[in-house]
Amino acid sequence: LKIAVLPGDGIGPEITEQAVKMLKSIADRFDHDFHFEKASVGATAIDQFNNPLPEATLDLCKESDAVLFGAIGHPKYDNDPSAKIRPEQGLLRLRKELGLFANIRPVTTYSKLIDLSPLRRERIEGVDMVIYRELTGGIYFGEKSLNEEDTSATDVCTYSVMEIERITHLAFKAAQKRRKKLTLVDKANVLETSRLWRKTVTAIAKEYSDVQLDFLFVDNAAMQMILNPKQFDVILTENLFGDILSDEASVISGSIGLLASASVGKKNALFEPIHGSYPEATGKGIANPLAAILSAAMLLDHFHLTEEAKAIRDAVEISINLNICTQDINNEYHYSTEKVGDFLDG
Amino acid sequence: LKIAVLPGDGIGPEITEQAVKMLKSIADRFDHDFHFEKASVGATAIDQFNNPLPEATLDLCKESDAVLFGAIGHPKYDNDPSAKIRPEQGLLRLRKELGLFANIRPVTTYSKLIDLSPLRRERIEGVDMVIYRELTGGIYFGEKSLNEEDTSATDVCTYSVMEIERITHLAFKAAQKRRKKLTLVDKANVLETSRLWRKTVTAIAKEYSDVQLDFLFVDNAAMQMILNPKQFDVILTENLFGDILSDEASVISGSIGLLASASVGKKNALFEPIHGSYPEATGKGIANPLAAILSAAMLLDHFHLTEEAKAIRDAVEISINLNICTQDINNEYHYSTEKVGDFLDG
Ligand SMILES: CC(C)[C@H](C(=O)O)[C@@H](O)C(=O)O
Ligand SMILES: CC(C)[C@H](C(=O)O)[C@@H](O)C(=O)O
Repeated sequence: LKIAVLPGDGIGPEITEQAVKMLKSIADRFDHDFHFEKASVGATAIDQFNNPLPEATLDLCKESDAVLFGAIGHPKYDNDPSAKIRPEQGLLRLRKELGLFANIRPVTTYSKLIDLSPLRRERIEGVDMVIYRELTGGIYFGEKSLNEEDTSATDVCTYSVMEIERITHLAFKAAQKRRKKLTLVDKANVLETSRLWRKTVTAIAKEYSDVQLDFLFVDNAAMQMILNPKQFDVILTENLFGDILSDEASVISGSIGLLASASVGKKNALFEPIHGSYPEATGKGIANPLAAILSAAMLLDHFHLTEEAKAIRDAVEISINLNICTQDINNEYHYSTEKVGDFLDG
Repeated sequence: LKIAVLPGDGIGPEITEQAVKMLKSIADRFDHDFHFEKASVGATAIDQFNNPLPEATLDLCKESDAVLFGAIGHPKYDNDPSAKIRPEQGLLRLRKELGLFANIRPVTTYSKLIDLSPLRRERIEGVDMVIYRELTGGIYFGEKSLNEEDTSATDVCTYSVMEIERITHLAFKAAQKRRKKLTLVDKANVLETSRLWRKTVTAIAKEYSDVQLDFLFVDNAAMQMILNPKQFDVILTENLFGDILSDEASVISGSIGLLASASVGKKNALFEPIHGSYPEATGKGIANPLAAILSAAMLLDHFHLTEEAKAIRDAVEISINLNICTQDINNEYHYSTEKVGDFLDG
């Protein structure tokens, strides 16, 4: 396997390093050949090349089997609304160029960590859902404009039936292998795009008659996610709603530092933690590497290296049970990012 | 005061009836003259007049001092993505025609109810925030279109500086009277409209130097709302984000049946519970009237009838403490919608 490694900004490099270490030790143990090649993206790439996604990085990703991604973003751009070049453009363009239309975000709980969650134990014990977020359409990629006098701004949200169909099939197939329930989240009482989602998904549902389909408006879904997260099996939704709901869902696991994701397309695949670049923590050795390491497990799963992926997940479970964890999930005696990584690949 | 009463759909009529009863008893007690006039809106109005906001209803609202609104929405439209006339259009058009640009949604806790919340006591005890949601702009009111072949749909999100400014001033003024903290929620790392919000709000902040301004991306805000809701004082945000976040925030109080809102403009004002029409509960006498009754309290506050508003809030507090509540917040021995209303105005 040829793996492109894009550490990115903030804590990205620290956590990605642990994920690469883990993959190397898996390669050793299971006698695989994994080739890693690093490239620059995000604020780091702007600093070096004035481009959040340099062509060399994009080329590398295209010719690799998979991309291992860290995190992106820097406060100096967040607080400068008029910046023309921004780190996030690097990630968004990468998703688009690689055609990564489905972002898959599993949410489960670890029994050892349940009391860390702000939610009461009985509400979350046994939660097991996966969010299918459309990743290359919607308002993220629609036309953006400012009028001449800078007194009015516009973002356009567009979805085509084709864009809805391809991720919908993936989500139904996932549901078939799980608890056979799919919930479409939209705002069909207000948005035209949502109504197209509802219509398209309803039509496709006929091909998956063993899966139960239901619908939730996004406002209600944001409430149900906390009131009764166990009701969810597969959630299917558009780009922006998926962004919001998956971050919200991270509270169930007790830390956003635990949540991994896979972004897949027809040809390419990218694996990244759902947390961001967490600039305040950069270089302090306090960032939780588990989301990055679990993203590496999703990478292995993607190539049907099931046993290898399981080895990572088992190691993560053991580290959690032994409390060999960073401070976000262990506030008594916490370990550094690197120490957690060392324990896991040992 | 001349008050237009728009009960709407589902449980709307039942809960609105209790709110009107409460206002009548307040009028008696404090020797005021309140005039109530009913009008039709939503699915009910479609059934009767084939129009979710008949002109007579709109006229009545325009010439009244305030509107008391129930709820809107019916599943037969939700599951018919091709319906051209929908109940929600009635509410949206009403908001637009009356110029109700600011929707104000307070979120607090009742100590008696804290153990009902899915969130642990220590995270929510003492939460006291108010969400200022922009209500007449953004993607709700932008152009909506389907292409000719029905294979692609578009929603447009536009914000002007003027639209951002007027609600921002209200939000800062509210913060000055509270804990002097304002959090702008946006997605400025992706959306042009969000960047205009950030720029405009940052400029206005200079006029309110006693208020601390900070920023959160909406995905992070959806997470922080659950992780640490006590951090929030005033939240300011655009229409769609406000819709999602305020429903999410309702879990803090233990039931969405407790949350009231005021929608204000230059001239008119409308008061409504944030919950929806809850069709499954219609006519069963199980709907919680407290959100509607607390909306009536917000109505009184709006006209500086502070003592009167307090009388309602005190009565609500007593009913909660005595457990004279509907089943959503009292699952031992629950009272009907009407019984709760009777107790309150007694
Ligand atoms: C960094 C940002 C553009 C990105 C997004 O909104 O997609 C992030 O929040 C995510 O969820 O991957
Ligand atoms: C009914 C619907 C159109 C409405 C909205 O989304 O604004 C409701 O959810 C609300 O929050 O008042």
